[in-house]
Amino acid sequence: AVGEVYLVGAGPGDPELLTFKALRLMQQADVVIYDRLVSPQVLDLCRRDADLIYVGKERDNHSVPQHGINALLVAHARQGRRVVRLKGGDPFIFGRGGEEIEELRAAGIPFQVVPGITAASACSTYAGIPLTHREYAQSVKFVTGQLKNRTSDLNFSELVHPNQTIVFYMGLHTLDHLCRGLIEHGKPESTPVAIVSQGTSPQQRVLTGTLSDIVALQQVAQLPAPAVVIVGEVVELQSRLSWFGKAEGSQA
Amino acid sequence: AVGEVYLVGAGPGDPELLTFKALRLMQQADVVIYDRLVSPQVLDLCRRDADLIYVGKERDNHSVPQHGINALLVAHARQGRRVVRLKGGDPFIFGRGGEEIEELRAAGIPFQVVPGITAASACSTYAGIPLTHREYAQSVKFVTGQLKNRTSDLNFSELVHPNQTIVFYMGLHTLDHLCRGLIEHGKPESTPVAIVSQGTSPQQRVLTGTLSDIVALQQVAQLPAPAVVIVGEVVELQSRLSWFGKAEGSQA
Repeated sequence: AVGEVYLVGAGPGDPELLTFKALRLMQQADVVIYDRLVSPQVLDLCRRDADLIYVGKERDNHSVPQHGINALLVAHARQGRRVVRLKGGDPFIFGRGGEEIEELRAAGIPFQVVPGITAASACSTYAGIPLTHREYAQSVKFVTGQLKNRTSDLNFSELVHPNQTIVFYMGLHTLDHLCRGLIEHGKPESTPVAIVSQGTSPQQRVLTGTLSDIVALQQVAQLPAPAVVIVGEVVELQSRLSWFGKAEGSQA
Repeated sequence: AVGEVYLVGAGPGDPELLTFKALRLMQQADVVIYDRLVSPQVLDLCRRDADLIYVGKERDNHSVPQHGINALLVAHARQGRRVVRLKGGDPFIFGRGGEEIEELRAAGIPFQVVPGITAASACSTYAGIPLTHREYAQSVKFVTGQLKNRTSDLNFSELVHPNQTIVFYMGLHTLDHLCRGLIEHGKPESTPVAIVSQGTSPQQRVLTGTLSDIVALQQVAQLPAPAVVIVGEVVELQSRLSWFGKAEGSQA
Protein backbone atom coordinates (compact mmCIF):
# COMPACT_ATOMS: atom_id res chain seq x y z
CA ALA A 1 0.00 0.00 0.00
CA VAL A 2 1.11 3.54 -0.67
CA GLY A 3 2.15 5.65 2.32
CA GLU A 4 1.29 9.24 3.13
CA VAL A 5 3.22 12.50 3.32
CA TYR A 6 2.70 15.11 6.03
CA LEU A 7 4.10 18.52 5.15
CA VAL A 8 4.70 19.99 8.60
CA GLY A 9 5.63 23.51 9.66
CA ALA A 10 8.16 23.30 12.51
CA GLY A 11 7.80 26.94 13.50
CA PRO A 12 10.64 29.34 14.26
CA GLY A 13 12.89 27.23 16.49
CA ASP A 14 11.53 27.36 20.05
CA PRO A 15 10.14 23.81 20.44
CA GLU A 16 7.30 25.14 22.61
CA LEU A 17 5.97 26.90 19.50
CA LEU A 18 5.30 23.56 17.79
CA THR A 19 1.63 22.71 17.39
CA PHE A 20 0.10 19.56 18.83
CA LYS A 21 -0.68 18.36 15.33
CA ALA A 22 2.94 18.78 14.24
CA LEU A 23 4.21 16.74 17.20
CA ARG A 24 1.62 13.99 16.73
CA LEU A 25 2.60 13.49 13.09
CA MET A 26 6.33 13.70 13.89
CA GLN A 27 5.90 10.90 16.39
CA GLN A 28 4.10 8.72 13.81
CA ALA A 29 6.60 9.21 11.01
CA ASP A 30 8.76 6.38 9.67
CA VAL A 31 10.99 8.89 7.92
CA VAL A 32 11.57 12.61 8.46
CA ILE A 33 12.98 14.70 5.62
CA TYR A 34 14.10 18.05 7.03
CA ASP A 35 16.00 21.06 5.89
CA ARG A 36 17.54 24.33 7.02
CA LEU A 37 16.06 26.19 9.98
CA VAL A 38 14.60 23.14 11.72
CA SER A 39 16.13 23.44 15.19
CA PRO A 40 17.88 20.47 16.86
CA GLN A 41 15.44 20.77 19.78
CA VAL A 42 12.55 20.21 17.39
CA LEU A 43 14.26 17.29 15.61
CA ASP A 44 14.77 15.64 19.00
CA LEU A 45 10.99 15.29 19.27
CA CYS A 46 10.73 12.97 16.25
CA ARG A 47 10.09 9.25 16.79
CA ARG A 48 13.28 7.68 18.14
CA ASP A 49 13.54 5.04 15.41
CA ALA A 50 12.55 7.30 12.50
CA ASP A 51 15.04 7.75 9.66
CA LEU A 52 16.16 11.39 9.59
CA ILE A 53 17.22 12.67 6.17
CA TYR A 54 18.83 16.10 5.85
CA VAL A 55 18.26 17.80 2.51
CA GLY A 56 20.35 20.89 3.11
CA LYS A 57 19.93 24.57 3.18
CA GLU A 58 19.22 26.92 0.33
CA ARG A 59 22.53 28.80 0.45
CA ASP A 60 24.50 25.58 0.82
CA ASN A 61 26.22 23.91 -2.12
CA HIS A 62 25.65 20.49 -0.57
CA SER A 63 21.87 20.80 -0.51
CA VAL A 64 19.52 18.53 -2.43
CA PRO A 65 17.83 20.45 -5.29
CA GLN A 66 14.06 20.89 -5.12
CA HIS A 67 13.28 18.24 -7.76
CA GLY A 68 15.41 15.80 -5.78
CA ILE A 69 13.42 16.53 -2.62
CA ASN A 70 10.17 16.03 -4.50
CA ALA A 71 11.45 12.69 -5.82
CA LEU A 72 12.54 11.58 -2.31
CA LEU A 73 9.07 12.26 -0.90
CA VAL A 74 7.44 10.23 -3.67
CA ALA A 75 9.93 7.35 -3.41
CA HIS A 76 9.55 6.90 0.35
CA ALA A 77 5.76 7.13 0.22
CA ARG A 78 5.68 4.51 -2.58
CA GLN A 79 7.47 2.14 -0.17
CA GLY A 80 4.42 2.45 2.08
CA ARG A 81 6.12 4.68 4.63
CA ARG A 82 4.67 7.57 6.59
CA VAL A 83 6.82 10.52 5.64
CA VAL A 84 7.07 13.82 7.51
CA ARG A 85 8.48 16.64 5.43
CA LEU A 86 9.61 19.01 8.18
CA LYS A 87 10.23 22.67 7.32
CA GLY A 88 11.24 25.65 9.41
CA GLY A 89 8.37 28.14 9.81
CA ASP A 90 5.30 27.52 7.65
CA PRO A 91 5.25 25.32 4.50
CA PHE A 92 3.09 27.76 2.49
CA ILE A 93 4.96 31.01 3.30
CA PHE A 94 8.28 30.94 1.39
CA GLY A 95 8.47 27.20 2.10
CA ARG A 96 7.93 25.88 -1.44
CA GLY A 97 5.29 23.57 0.00
CA GLY A 98 3.06 24.15 -3.00
CA GLU A 99 5.65 22.69 -5.35
CA GLU A 100 6.11 19.61 -3.20
CA ILE A 101 2.44 18.76 -2.92
CA GLU A 102 1.90 19.36 -6.65
CA GLU A 103 4.39 16.53 -7.19
CA LEU A 104 2.63 14.32 -4.62
CA ARG A 105 -0.71 15.06 -6.19
CA ALA A 106 0.64 14.14 -9.64
CA ALA A 107 1.97 10.87 -8.22
CA GLY A 108 -1.34 10.06 -6.52
CA ILE A 109 0.13 10.09 -3.00
CA PRO A 110 -2.14 11.25 -0.14
CA PHE A 111 -0.88 14.23 1.85
CA GLN A 112 -1.77 16.65 4.62
CA VAL A 113 -0.31 20.06 5.39
CA VAL A 114 0.19 21.45 8.91
CA PRO A 115 0.71 25.20 9.22
CA GLY A 116 3.50 26.47 11.47
CA ILE A 117 4.20 29.77 13.18
CA THR A 118 5.97 31.70 10.44
CA ALA A 119 9.18 33.61 11.17
CA ALA A 120 7.62 37.05 10.71
CA SER A 121 5.04 36.35 13.37
CA ALA A 122 7.31 34.62 15.87
CA CYS A 123 10.22 37.04 15.57
CA SER A 124 8.05 40.15 15.81
CA THR A 125 6.23 38.75 18.85
CA TYR A 126 9.40 37.80 20.70
CA ALA A 127 10.93 41.19 19.81
CA GLY A 128 7.90 43.16 21.06
CA ILE A 129 6.89 44.54 17.64
CA PRO A 130 3.17 44.26 16.76
CA LEU A 131 2.90 43.67 13.00
CA THR A 132 -0.35 45.65 12.81
CA HIS A 133 -1.46 48.50 15.07
CA ARG A 134 -4.39 50.86 14.64
CA GLU A 135 -2.18 53.92 14.83
CA TYR A 136 0.79 52.75 12.77
CA ALA A 137 0.03 49.96 10.31
CA GLN A 138 -3.28 48.67 8.95
CA SER A 139 -1.64 45.94 6.87
CA VAL A 140 1.44 43.75 6.84
CA LYS A 141 3.37 42.30 3.92
CA PHE A 142 5.83 39.39 3.84
CA VAL A 143 8.51 39.55 1.13
CA THR A 144 11.60 37.45 0.48
CA GLY A 145 14.80 39.46 0.57
CA GLN A 146 16.73 36.78 -1.22
CA LEU A 147 17.41 37.77 -4.81
CA LYS A 148 19.10 34.78 -6.43
CA ASN A 149 16.79 32.16 -7.93
CA ARG A 150 14.04 34.75 -8.20
CA THR A 151 12.12 35.10 -11.43
CA SER A 152 11.86 38.88 -11.03
CA ASP A 153 13.56 41.58 -9.02
CA LEU A 154 11.82 43.23 -6.10
CA ASN A 155 9.13 45.71 -7.08
CA PHE A 156 10.05 48.47 -4.63
CA SER A 157 7.17 50.69 -5.69
CA GLU A 158 4.75 48.31 -3.96
CA LEU A 159 6.80 48.38 -0.75
CA VAL A 160 6.92 52.11 -0.06
CA HIS A 161 3.24 52.76 0.72
CA PRO A 162 2.73 54.28 4.19
CA ASN A 163 0.83 52.62 7.07
CA GLN A 164 2.02 49.11 6.30
CA THR A 165 4.62 46.88 7.91
CA ILE A 166 7.05 45.02 5.64
CA VAL A 167 8.83 41.88 6.82
CA PHE A 168 11.73 40.66 4.68
CA TYR A 169 12.57 36.98 5.05
CA MET A 170 16.24 36.14 4.47
CA GLY A 171 16.94 39.86 4.09
CA LEU A 172 20.23 40.03 5.98
CA HIS A 173 22.49 39.36 3.01
CA THR A 174 20.74 41.96 0.85
CA LEU A 175 20.12 44.55 3.59
CA ASP A 176 22.06 47.31 1.83
CA HIS A 177 20.18 46.68 -1.45
CA LEU A 178 16.79 46.65 0.32
CA CYS A 179 17.37 49.88 2.26
CA ARG A 180 18.72 51.75 -0.76
CA GLY A 181 15.86 50.54 -2.95
CA LEU A 182 13.20 51.63 -0.46
CA ILE A 183 14.78 55.09 -0.03
CA GLU A 184 15.22 55.55 -3.80
CA HIS A 185 11.53 54.73 -4.30
CA GLY A 186 10.40 57.35 -1.79
CA LYS A 187 10.31 55.68 1.63
CA PRO A 188 11.51 58.23 4.23
CA GLU A 189 15.10 57.67 5.42
CA SER A 190 13.83 57.95 8.99
CA THR A 191 11.58 54.86 8.63
CA PRO A 192 12.31 52.56 11.58
CA VAL A 193 13.93 49.16 10.87
CA ALA A 194 14.58 46.17 13.12
CA ILE A 195 16.70 43.10 12.52
CA VAL A 196 15.59 40.11 14.59
CA SER A 197 18.36 37.50 14.56
CA GLN A 198 17.84 33.89 15.71
CA GLY A 199 14.37 34.87 16.85
CA THR A 200 12.72 32.90 19.72
CA SER A 201 15.99 31.15 20.60
CA PRO A 202 18.04 31.98 23.73
CA GLN A 203 20.47 33.63 21.29
CA GLN A 204 17.84 36.05 19.94
CA ARG A 205 19.22 39.54 19.29
CA VAL A 206 17.35 42.62 18.10
CA LEU A 207 19.01 45.59 16.40
CA THR A 208 16.98 48.71 15.65
CA GLY A 209 17.71 51.76 13.55
CA THR A 210 16.38 53.49 10.46
CA LEU A 211 16.57 52.91 6.72
CA SER A 212 19.51 55.31 6.61
CA ASP A 213 21.64 53.86 9.44
CA ILE A 214 20.73 50.17 9.93
CA VAL A 215 23.37 48.98 7.44
CA ALA A 216 26.14 50.76 9.36
CA LEU A 217 24.76 49.54 12.69
CA GLN A 218 24.70 45.96 11.42
CA GLN A 219 28.26 46.27 10.12
CA VAL A 220 29.28 46.85 13.73
CA ALA A 221 26.81 44.49 15.44
CA GLN A 222 27.22 41.60 12.94
CA LEU A 223 24.01 39.84 13.94
CA PRO A 224 24.00 36.34 12.42
CA ALA A 225 21.45 34.68 10.16
CA PRO A 226 18.74 33.45 10.24
CA ALA A 227 17.07 36.81 10.64
CA VAL A 228 14.05 38.78 9.53
CA VAL A 229 14.14 42.50 8.73
CA ILE A 230 11.06 44.48 9.82
CA VAL A 231 10.42 47.89 8.25
CA GLY A 232 7.73 50.28 9.49
CA GLU A 233 6.54 52.63 12.22
CA VAL A 234 5.58 49.69 14.49
CA VAL A 235 9.30 49.15 15.12
CA GLU A 236 9.20 52.28 17.30
CA LEU A 237 7.16 50.33 19.84
CA GLN A 238 9.97 47.82 20.34
CA SER A 239 11.88 49.80 22.95
CA ARG A 240 8.75 49.96 25.11
CA LEU A 241 7.23 46.55 24.44
CA SER A 242 10.15 44.14 24.32
CA TRP A 243 9.78 41.38 26.90
CA PHE A 244 11.96 38.44 25.77
CA GLY A 245 15.71 38.46 26.36
CA LYS A 246 17.42 41.81 25.91
CA ALA A 247 17.44 44.27 23.05
CA GLU A 248 20.24 46.41 21.69
CA GLY A 249 20.06 49.28 19.23
CA SER A 250 20.46 52.89 18.42
CA GLN A 251 17.58 54.06 20.59
CA ALA A 252 18.56 51.96 23.62
CA ALA B 1 2.59 40.72 44.73
CA VAL B 2 1.55 41.75 41.24
CA GLY B 3 0.47 38.98 38.84
CA GLU B 4 1.40 38.50 35.22
CA VAL B 5 -0.47 38.64 31.92
CA TYR B 6 0.06 36.17 29.08
CA LEU B 7 -1.26 37.39 25.75
CA VAL B 8 -1.88 34.10 23.95
CA GLY B 9 -2.78 33.38 20.33
CA ALA B 10 -5.35 30.57 20.24
CA GLY B 11 -4.93 29.92 16.52
CA PRO B 12 -7.75 29.44 14.02
CA GLY B 13 -10.06 27.06 15.88
CA ASP B 14 -8.75 23.51 15.44
CA PRO B 15 -7.45 22.77 18.96
CA GLU B 16 -4.63 20.66 17.48
CA LEU B 17 -3.19 23.90 16.06
CA LEU B 18 -2.56 25.29 19.54
CA THR B 19 1.10 25.54 20.48
CA PHE B 20 2.55 23.78 23.52
CA LYS B 21 3.36 27.15 25.05
CA ALA B 22 -0.24 28.33 24.68
CA LEU B 23 -1.59 25.22 26.40
CA ARG B 24 0.95 25.39 29.22
CA LEU B 25 0.02 28.98 30.05
CA MET B 26 -3.73 28.27 29.69
CA GLN B 27 -3.37 25.52 32.27
CA GLN B 28 -1.58 27.84 34.70
CA ALA B 29 -4.03 30.73 34.42
CA ASP B 30 -6.23 31.86 37.33
CA VAL B 31 -8.39 33.87 34.95
CA VAL B 32 -8.90 33.69 31.19
CA ILE B 33 -10.22 36.72 29.33
CA TYR B 34 -11.30 35.65 25.86
CA ASP B 35 -13.10 37.10 22.91
CA ARG B 36 -14.58 36.30 19.55
CA LEU B 37 -13.12 33.51 17.45
CA VAL B 38 -11.78 31.46 20.34
CA SER B 39 -13.35 28.05 19.71
CA PRO B 40 -15.19 26.15 22.47
CA GLN B 41 -12.79 23.22 21.94
CA VAL B 42 -9.88 25.51 22.77
CA LEU B 43 -11.60 27.04 25.81
CA ASP B 44 -12.20 23.51 27.14
CA LEU B 45 -8.44 23.14 27.54
CA CYS B 46 -8.16 25.94 30.13
CA ARG B 47 -7.60 25.03 33.78
CA ARG B 48 -10.85 23.60 35.16
CA ASP B 49 -11.12 26.08 38.04
CA ALA B 50 -10.04 29.19 36.09
CA ASP B 51 -12.49 32.09 35.85
CA LEU B 52 -13.52 32.53 32.22
CA ILE B 53 -14.52 36.06 31.23
CA TYR B 54 -16.03 36.72 27.81
CA VAL B 55 -15.38 40.19 26.44
CA GLY B 56 -17.41 39.93 23.27
CA LYS B 57 -16.92 40.16 19.59
CA GLU B 58 -16.10 43.18 17.51
CA ARG B 59 -19.38 43.34 15.57
CA ASP B 60 -21.44 42.71 18.70
CA ASN B 61 -23.13 45.52 20.62
CA HIS B 62 -22.66 43.64 23.87
CA SER B 63 -18.90 43.54 23.66
CA VAL B 64 -16.56 45.21 26.14
CA PRO B 65 -14.78 48.19 24.53
CA GLN B 66 -11.00 48.01 24.14
CA HIS B 67 -10.24 50.38 27.04
CA GLY B 68 -12.45 48.23 29.25
CA ILE B 69 -10.49 45.11 28.27
CA ASN B 70 -7.22 46.88 28.99
CA ALA B 71 -8.54 47.91 32.44
CA LEU B 72 -9.70 44.33 33.18
CA LEU B 73 -6.25 42.94 32.44
CA VAL B 74 -4.61 45.46 34.75
CA ALA B 75 -7.15 44.99 37.55
CA HIS B 76 -6.86 41.19 37.64
CA ALA B 77 -3.06 41.27 37.50
CA ARG B 78 -2.97 43.80 40.36
CA GLN B 79 -4.84 41.24 42.46
CA GLY B 80 -1.82 38.97 42.01
CA ARG B 81 -3.51 36.67 39.54
CA ARG B 82 -2.06 34.95 36.51
CA VAL B 83 -4.13 36.22 33.61
CA VAL B 84 -4.35 34.65 30.16
CA ARG B 85 -5.67 37.00 27.50
CA LEU B 86 -6.81 34.52 24.88
CA LYS B 87 -7.34 35.72 21.31
CA GLY B 88 -8.33 33.94 18.13
CA GLY B 89 -5.43 33.71 15.67
CA ASP B 90 -2.35 35.76 16.53
CA PRO B 91 -2.26 38.68 19.01
CA PHE B 92 -0.03 40.87 16.82
CA ILE B 93 -1.87 40.40 13.48
CA PHE B 94 -5.15 42.35 13.66
CA GLY B 95 -5.41 41.30 17.31
CA ARG B 96 -4.84 44.70 18.97
CA GLY B 97 -2.26 42.99 21.16
CA GLY B 98 0.03 46.01 20.90
CA GLU B 99 -2.55 48.26 22.53
CA GLU B 100 -3.12 45.83 25.39
CA ILE B 101 0.53 45.41 26.27
CA GLU B 102 1.15 49.17 26.03
CA GLU B 103 -1.37 49.49 28.85
CA LEU B 104 0.29 46.71 30.85
CA ARG B 105 3.68 48.28 30.33
CA ALA B 106 2.38 51.65 31.51
CA ALA B 107 0.95 49.96 34.63
CA GLY B 108 4.21 48.12 35.35
CA ILE B 109 2.70 44.66 34.95
CA PRO B 110 4.92 41.87 33.58
CA PHE B 111 3.70 40.19 30.41
CA GLN B 112 4.58 37.64 27.76
CA VAL B 113 3.18 37.21 24.27
CA VAL B 114 2.65 33.85 22.56
CA PRO B 115 2.20 33.89 18.78
CA GLY B 116 -0.60 31.83 17.26
CA ILE B 117 -1.28 30.44 13.80
CA THR B 118 -2.97 33.38 12.10
CA ALA B 119 -6.16 32.88 10.09
CA ALA B 120 -4.52 33.63 6.72
CA SER B 121 -1.99 30.87 7.23
CA ALA B 122 -4.35 28.27 8.68
CA CYS B 123 -7.21 28.84 6.23
CA SER B 124 -4.98 28.86 3.17
CA THR B 125 -3.23 25.67 4.31
CA TYR B 126 -6.46 23.79 5.02
CA ALA B 127 -7.91 25.02 1.72
CA GLY B 128 -4.88 23.91 -0.31
CA ILE B 129 -3.78 27.41 -1.37
CA PRO B 130 -0.05 28.18 -0.94
CA LEU B 131 0.27 31.89 0.00
CA THR B 132 3.54 32.19 -1.88
CA HIS B 133 4.68 30.18 -4.90
CA ARG B 134 7.67 30.77 -7.17
CA GLU B 135 5.51 30.90 -10.28
CA TYR B 136 2.55 32.90 -8.97
CA ALA B 137 3.30 35.09 -5.95
CA GLN B 138 6.60 36.26 -4.49
CA SER B 139 4.94 38.11 -1.60
CA VAL B 140 1.82 37.99 0.53
CA LYS B 141 -0.09 40.80 2.20
CA PHE B 142 -2.59 40.67 5.07
CA VAL B 143 -5.23 43.41 5.12
CA THR B 144 -8.34 43.94 7.21
CA GLY B 145 -11.50 44.09 5.14
CA GLN B 146 -13.45 45.66 7.96
CA LEU B 147 -14.07 49.34 7.26
CA LYS B 148 -15.82 50.71 10.35
CA ASN B 149 -13.51 51.92 13.13
CA ARG B 150 -10.73 52.36 10.62
CA THR B 151 -8.73 55.55 10.59
CA SER B 152 -8.40 55.52 6.81
CA ASP B 153 -10.08 53.79 3.92
CA LEU B 154 -8.35 51.02 2.05
CA ASN B 155 -5.59 52.16 -0.27
CA PHE B 156 -6.51 50.01 -3.27
CA SER B 157 -3.57 51.21 -5.33
CA GLU B 158 -1.21 49.23 -3.08
CA LEU B 159 -3.32 46.09 -3.47
CA VAL B 160 -3.37 45.74 -7.26
CA HIS B 161 0.29 44.95 -7.92
CA PRO B 162 0.78 41.61 -9.74
CA ASN B 163 2.59 38.57 -8.32
CA GLN B 164 1.35 39.04 -4.77
CA THR B 165 -1.31 37.27 -2.75
CA ILE B 166 -3.73 39.41 -0.73
CA VAL B 167 -5.59 37.98 2.26
CA PHE B 168 -8.48 40.05 3.63
CA TYR B 169 -9.40 39.35 7.25
CA MET B 170 -13.06 39.94 8.07
CA GLY B 171 -13.70 40.66 4.39
CA LEU B 172 -17.01 38.84 4.00
CA HIS B 173 -19.25 41.80 4.89
CA THR B 174 -17.39 44.13 2.53
CA LEU B 175 -16.78 41.65 -0.29
CA ASP B 176 -18.64 43.68 -2.91
CA HIS B 177 -16.73 46.86 -1.96
CA LEU B 178 -13.38 45.03 -2.02
CA CYS B 179 -13.92 43.41 -5.43
CA ARG B 180 -15.18 46.62 -7.04
CA GLY B 181 -12.31 48.63 -5.58
CA LEU B 182 -9.68 46.21 -6.85
CA ILE B 183 -11.19 46.12 -10.35
CA GLU B 184 -11.56 49.92 -10.49
CA HIS B 185 -7.89 50.29 -9.57
CA GLY B 186 -6.75 47.99 -12.35
CA LYS B 187 -6.73 44.43 -11.02
CA PRO B 188 -7.94 42.11 -13.82
CA GLU B 189 -11.54 40.93 -13.43
CA SER B 190 -10.34 37.38 -14.02
CA THR B 191 -8.14 37.42 -10.89
CA PRO B 192 -8.96 34.27 -8.87
CA VAL B 193 -10.63 34.71 -5.46
CA ALA B 194 -11.36 32.20 -2.69
CA ILE B 195 -13.54 32.55 0.38
CA VAL B 196 -12.51 30.19 3.20
CA SER B 197 -15.32 30.02 5.76
CA GLN B 198 -14.87 28.55 9.25
CA GLY B 199 -11.40 27.45 8.22
CA THR B 200 -9.83 24.39 9.93
CA SER B 201 -13.16 23.40 11.55
CA PRO B 202 -15.24 20.39 10.41
CA GLN B 203 -17.61 23.02 8.94
CA GLN B 204 -14.91 24.53 6.71
CA ARG B 205 -16.20 25.52 3.27
CA VAL B 206 -14.27 26.96 0.34
CA LEU B 207 -15.85 28.95 -2.47
CA THR B 208 -13.76 29.95 -5.48
CA GLY B 209 -14.41 32.35 -8.34
CA THR B 210 -13.00 35.56 -9.75
CA LEU B 211 -13.14 39.23 -8.83
CA SER B 212 -16.04 39.62 -11.26
CA ASP B 213 -18.21 36.70 -10.10
CA ILE B 214 -17.39 35.86 -6.48
CA VAL B 215 -20.01 38.27 -5.11
CA ALA B 216 -22.79 36.57 -7.09
CA LEU B 217 -21.47 33.13 -6.17
CA GLN B 218 -21.44 34.04 -2.49
CA GLN B 219 -25.00 35.42 -2.73
CA VAL B 220 -26.05 31.90 -3.66
CA ALA B 221 -23.66 29.95 -1.43
CA GLN B 222 -24.09 32.17 1.68
CA LEU B 223 -20.92 30.96 3.38
CA PRO B 224 -20.96 32.15 7.00
CA ALA B 225 -18.38 34.22 8.91
CA PRO B 226 -15.71 33.97 10.17
CA ALA B 227 -13.99 33.86 6.82
CA VAL B 228 -10.91 35.08 5.00
CA VAL B 229 -10.91 36.21 1.39
CA ILE B 230 -7.82 35.27 -0.63
CA VAL B 231 -7.10 37.14 -3.88
CA GLY B 232 -4.39 36.08 -6.33
CA GLU B 233 -3.20 33.54 -8.90
CA VAL B 234 -2.33 31.01 -6.17
CA VAL B 235 -6.07 30.39 -5.75
CA GLU B 236 -5.94 28.51 -9.07
CA LEU B 237 -3.99 25.76 -7.33
CA GLN B 238 -6.84 25.07 -4.92
CA SER B 239 -8.78 22.69 -7.16
CA ARG B 240 -5.66 20.50 -7.50
CA LEU B 241 -4.19 20.82 -4.00
CA SER B 242 -7.15 20.78 -1.63
CA TRP B 243 -6.86 17.94 0.87
CA PHE B 244 -9.09 18.84 3.85
CA GLY B 245 -12.86 18.35 3.73
CA LYS B 246 -14.49 19.12 0.40
CA ALA B 247 -14.44 22.19 -1.80
CA GLU B 248 -17.18 23.79 -3.84
CA GLY B 249 -16.85 26.47 -6.48
CA SER B 250 -17.24 27.67 -10.01
CA GLN B 251 -14.36 25.63 -11.39
CA ALA B 252 -15.47 22.41 -9.67
